[in-house]
Amino acid sequence: MDTLKRNYNPVTLEIAKELERIVGEKFVIYGDQEKLETFSHDEISEAEYAHMPEIAVRPTTVEEIAAIMKLANRTNVPVTPRGAGSGLSGGAVPIYGGIVLSVDRMNKIIEIDRDNMMITVEPGVVTNEINDFVKDSGLFYAGYPMSLETCYIGGNVAENAGGGKAIKYGVTGRYVTGMEVVTPVGEIIQLGGKLVKDVTGYNLIQLMVGSEGTLGIFTKITLKLIPLPKSSVDLLCLFETAEDAIAAVPKIMTTGGIIPTAIEFMDKTSVQAACEYLNETIPYQEAGAMLLITVDGASVAQVEQEYNAIGELCLDTGATEVYVADNFTTSERIWKVRRNIAEAFKVISPHQSLEDIVVPIAAIPKMVCGLGKLSKKYDCSIPCYGHAGDGNLHATPVMNPKWSLEKWRKIRPELLTEMYNLTAELGGAISGEHGIGHKRKKEMSLFVSQCYIDILRSIKLAFDPKNILNPGKIIDA
Amino acid sequence: MDTLKRNYNPVTLEIAKELERIVGEKFVIYGDQEKLETFSHDEISEAEYAHMPEIAVRPTTVEEIAAIMKLANRTNVPVTPRGAGSGLSGGAVPIYGGIVLSVDRMNKIIEIDRDNMMITVEPGVVTNEINDFVKDSGLFYAGYPMSLETCYIGGNVAENAGGGKAIKYGVTGRYVTGMEVVTPVGEIIQLGGKLVKDVTGYNLIQLMVGSEGTLGIFTKITLKLIPLPKSSVDLLCLFETAEDAIAAVPKIMTTGGIIPTAIEFMDKTSVQAACEYLNETIPYQEAGAMLLITVDGASVAQVEQEYNAIGELCLDTGATEVYVADNFTTSERIWKVRRNIAEAFKVISPHQSLEDIVVPIAAIPKMVCGLGKLSKKYDCSIPCYGHAGDGNLHATPVMNPKWSLEKWRKIRPELLTEMYNLTAELGGAISGEHGIGHKRKKEMSLFVSQCYIDILRSIKLAFDPKNILNPGKIIDA
Repeated sequence: MDTLKRNYNPVTLEIAKELERIVGEKFVIYGDQEKLETFSHDEISEAEYAHMPEIAVRPTTVEEIAAIMKLANRTNVPVTPRGAGSGLSGGAVPIYGGIVLSVDRMNKIIEIDRDNMMITVEPGVVTNEINDFVKDSGLFYAGYPMSLETCYIGGNVAENAGGGKAIKYGVTGRYVTGMEVVTPVGEIIQLGGKLVKDVTGYNLIQLMVGSEGTLGIFTKITLKLIPLPKSSVDLLCLFETAEDAIAAVPKIMTTGGIIPTAIEFMDKTSVQAACEYLNETIPYQEAGAMLLITVDGASVAQVEQEYNAIGELCLDTGATEVYVADNFTTSERIWKVRRNIAEAFKVISPHQSLEDIVVPIAAIPKMVCGLGKLSKKYDCSIPCYGHAGDGNLHATPVMNPKWSLEKWRKIRPELLTEMYNLTAELGGAISGEHGIGHKRKKEMSLFVSQCYIDILRSIKLAFDPKNILNPGKIIDA
Repeated sequence: MDTLKRNYNPVTLEIAKELERIVGEKFVIYGDQEKLETFSHDEISEAEYAHMPEIAVRPTTVEEIAAIMKLANRTNVPVTPRGAGSGLSGGAVPIYGGIVLSVDRMNKIIEIDRDNMMITVEPGVVTNEINDFVKDSGLFYAGYPMSLETCYIGGNVAENAGGGKAIKYGVTGRYVTGMEVVTPVGEIIQLGGKLVKDVTGYNLIQLMVGSEGTLGIFTKITLKLIPLPKSSVDLLCLFETAEDAIAAVPKIMTTGGIIPTAIEFMDKTSVQAACEYLNETIPYQEAGAMLLITVDGASVAQVEQEYNAIGELCLDTGATEVYVADNFTTSERIWKVRRNIAEAFKVISPHQSLEDIVVPIAAIPKMVCGLGKLSKKYDCSIPCYGHAGDGNLHATPVMNPKWSLEKWRKIRPELLTEMYNLTAELGGAISGEHGIGHKRKKEMSLFVSQCYIDILRSIKLAFDPKNILNPGKIIDA
């Protein structure tokens, strides 16, 4: 929980008073360590990634945020923006102390524009609320991060969240067409608008998306909506082993000629942990591994044809059973199990490392096989689940309960380096959707060149010459 | 055809010799003004946008390109990269002279990876060849710029080309997952790979896409492929007036609940010009305006259901006739007319300005109505066609044949400013897919703030401190 100091000034009483003048006394947390603790961590289970802020502020307008950034530049105090704190790489953690800027009060849906099929929201809107708001208009926001019941859309945009429906619908960035942004130096800029195509200058929107709060603070976000699918069916395909299940994934994508909405992979340990956590049962949770496959579309007939084709392909490639969930209640029960795996593992042990590796889809079987070998070699369980259809696996090494914490802390980096090296050999990357933050900053260099990192640094400094906004994330600037 | 000089050094005989050593004497054009003239322009019809290079080089390897960029930085000579020269904003035009770097010899398909549904190509591959190569694998590259028979994929990526199928499939950037790039200072970097999700650092790939050759030269491009649609049908919907046709577009997108593959708009003047140019006939080319609507999908039944729904919706909203083209020959005849409109207008008069404005889809009717008023006010025809389904209209003011060239040169900027102001008022942008280049550089400030332009400049200088690569495009750095 220590704060790393690095050429920044401390938050003085004078700065605290100035912040109170900007956002109102009620919305500044200063001096109350218990309340500030909430802002010291995200959803990473291990305490070593947490750091205390010196002060937290909860603005509601773009002008307030611009004023905060100007003050921070003037006084040389770092600012860390924060959404729901549901991140998994430490993006919202104030590693150099300073100011945490929470957007939790900026939670308004600004406009639903049915004619343009767009919605404009503030960054603190909970992702799931967007679909609640638009479904009566026959529209649909296609982002589906696993934390959708708690995470904020601002965080989704900052991390370029992926989630369960990315195979067919792509990740968050595909839907962002416009933004209002406060830059690190406190300027307010408008990017894009309600346009589905726009090549006016560099693609600053997609540079902001996934920048993990280091290039700007989003104060308004315009998202493209699509027609709500008229039909959606889930298949739960059971396999004897993880290898069998995962081998089916590239085949569904290529032989089948159909791009399903989702292909989620869950091994036995993951399913059982989540079922126990939720006190839930799903068919044959003792199966070796499962694929949860969603097909949606504009007509019942089309969806039926597609899920039949996929179901038969799974049976042909080794599935022992295929269950069809064609009503909302059953689908939601299964998806809830999937969504709660990470949470369930956290309850089992905080000494674990939730990883986010991504490999080309054809390399998934090799990756899962390699994870099996690593698990044996290190005598440590590595449950595995994730978005298999896009190659993104949440392998999660968990401390062997027989070990001391010291042993785990020694073995973990070795194991992770070996896992990352295998990922890199297979043409993969260190993070598919959770981001780099400060958790994976050092290990990123296993995947990219020094020249690549130098370019990231020069972009960061072009936006933020004093390195005030969320310093120490992704790279050291 | 003058060359603007601006603190760059001339290409000396010594530099020319050094370039010959790098790429081979045969592949350097120097001193031969007739041959160099080819490299002085793109497809903009007006001569004033052309500028002569001092030398042109035709490398074939990434190492050659890196060596050229290092030489250029050392000697302070600008380098302008060039694809097929089919651009429409002057991106490939060497406005400060110096070196034109043509990628025409880098035309190899490097790998088709069926298991990952990816293709890796060199930048000089003609876009249409990609689909010729992959169709037997049941795969499909979804980019469809109107110049696909001549343009290069490298240029498509540099401009983030849109085209005819962007409503359903998105623009070029959606399909780029990996790149090898030579930076402006001559470093070679690898971006991404065969991953469909990747959040390792800022999204440099999408920053490169659409950077108009100012941030790097792409030497390898990896593209995502998708399953080849099993069925595709075109509808040709005839309307009495342009206003009637365009009013149907937002309704198709919202009321119908179906996202078609394409909705192309062509007014009477455009259709007749292209038919005459091609010596072709299509049904009722004397109709006031047409919508060319494509529906494709995984089954004949699904496509049939969707085109029936759209056809009926068009008839309900004012179409006088709807023709169904359900075979390749008929479809291709109609699409060829659409693809050749720009070429046809160029033959009619070089004194025209092919524009690329884009507005929110719900604002298209207002935009078309405004163009009609401008046409009357300035007594100058403004034929209009384009990708109506995504709001991108190629309005093309053409010089009134009764005018002197001087009069046209006086009226054109006034007319364009008025057109741009209306576009901005409607929430639009100056370019949907053709880019800024040097053609629209000055007018871009009608759409974006000075702070926005300053950010573009700081990014450019972060990549290219000496402003060597394609200077004077998008912004003045």
